[in-house]
Amino acid sequence: MGGTDIERLIALLARLPGLGPRSARRAALALLRQPQTRMLPLAQAMEQAARAVKTCATCGNLDTRDPCGICADPARDRGLVCVVETVGDLWALERAGVHRGVYQVLGGTLSALAGLGPEDLNVGPLFARLEQGGVREIILALGATVEGATTSHWLQDRLARFDVPVSRVGQGVPMGGALDVLDDGTLAAALLARRPA
Amino acid sequence: MGGTDIERLIALLARLPGLGPRSARRAALALLRQPQTRMLPLAQAMEQAARAVKTCATCGNLDTRDPCGICADPARDRGLVCVVETVGDLWALERAGVHRGVYQVLGGTLSALAGLGPEDLNVGPLFARLEQGGVREIILALGATVEGATTSHWLQDRLARFDVPVSRVGQGVPMGGALDVLDDGTLAAALLARRPA
Repeated sequence: MGGTDIERLIALLARLPGLGPRSARRAALALLRQPQTRMLPLAQAMEQAARAVKTCATCGNLDTRDPCGICADPARDRGLVCVVETVGDLWALERAGVHRGVYQVLGGTLSALAGLGPEDLNVGPLFARLEQGGVREIILALGATVEGATTSHWLQDRLARFDVPVSRVGQGVPMGGALDVLDDGTLAAALLARRPA
Repeated sequence: MGGTDIERLIALLARLPGLGPRSARRAALALLRQPQTRMLPLAQAMEQAARAVKTCATCGNLDTRDPCGICADPARDRGLVCVVETVGDLWALERAGVHRGVYQVLGGTLSALAGLGPEDLNVGPLFARLEQGGVREIILALGATVEGATTSHWLQDRLARFDVPVSRVGQGVPMGGALDVLDDGTLAAALLARRPA
């Protein structure tokens, strides 16, 4: 199986989400075959990113600068704040390229099971922004899960005193999705959210 | 999507076998969340492995030393040489723990399609070992593919003059299967059920 250095590499790779022991070995082998052209550049990219990564104090995004590229971008509409659970959700919305405002990353949802309460959510900076004024709309883009819905309700409650419109992302049939593979909850939501054709 | 350092990290991760763009983003995010405890140790393990990795001049295995741990192990039977296509195949057989001899890693198979001829296979050291004497049996453990069978036939031909018994793993290797994806039990059965070629 190679030396302990190689075993250690495989063990660390196997801990990445999406890689199991088998695919970690395949990945390690691919890297070991090209140590100079493939493994060292990846190692250096990781070291650089690990040293440079910062959490944006304004919105909770991960970036190499604080404030992050989105918060620092003068072209983004600071009056439109989209609330998401994770940085992964923020990245997904950025790839879609449909949100021209800024974000607030909660870092999770309220979850009795996971023992996560309001104090664990990154909401302070959102309230601070609302108190400063200038926020015209808050869009809740939380997952359509029990925890996401619970968190949305709790946030709506806490946001009521600011007198700022709060909206939620629509629910329904995903683009390109066939109806017969969707769950009952999604179909019900899609039917309730129907609009004139 | 974060800074260019982060985008570069994602792009490099996405080139690993088994990771696509989506899982590369998930992996990058997991690493970025724990830069000190997760990303730096992995980066350092990669750098260390990249610096230390060597190809064993005797058998073609990848290890941090040359001769590799298997060739250097006095407990391994040098009279029993198992011929495999790749280091991944060698690792798979080592995990199965059924081969007490040594290996010869060809680094591929004869393949007209891939333009690989006899000169591309790492067979020289095997012939050298045979000329030195002391080899009692050669086990061909190549994949049950067209290329694997072609290579086995070609090798048998080249090995005939040495007057050393040549066997092939047979039973247990499914048609069209590569060795390194097989379970340990199948590999053990294939090795134990080897027959004269």
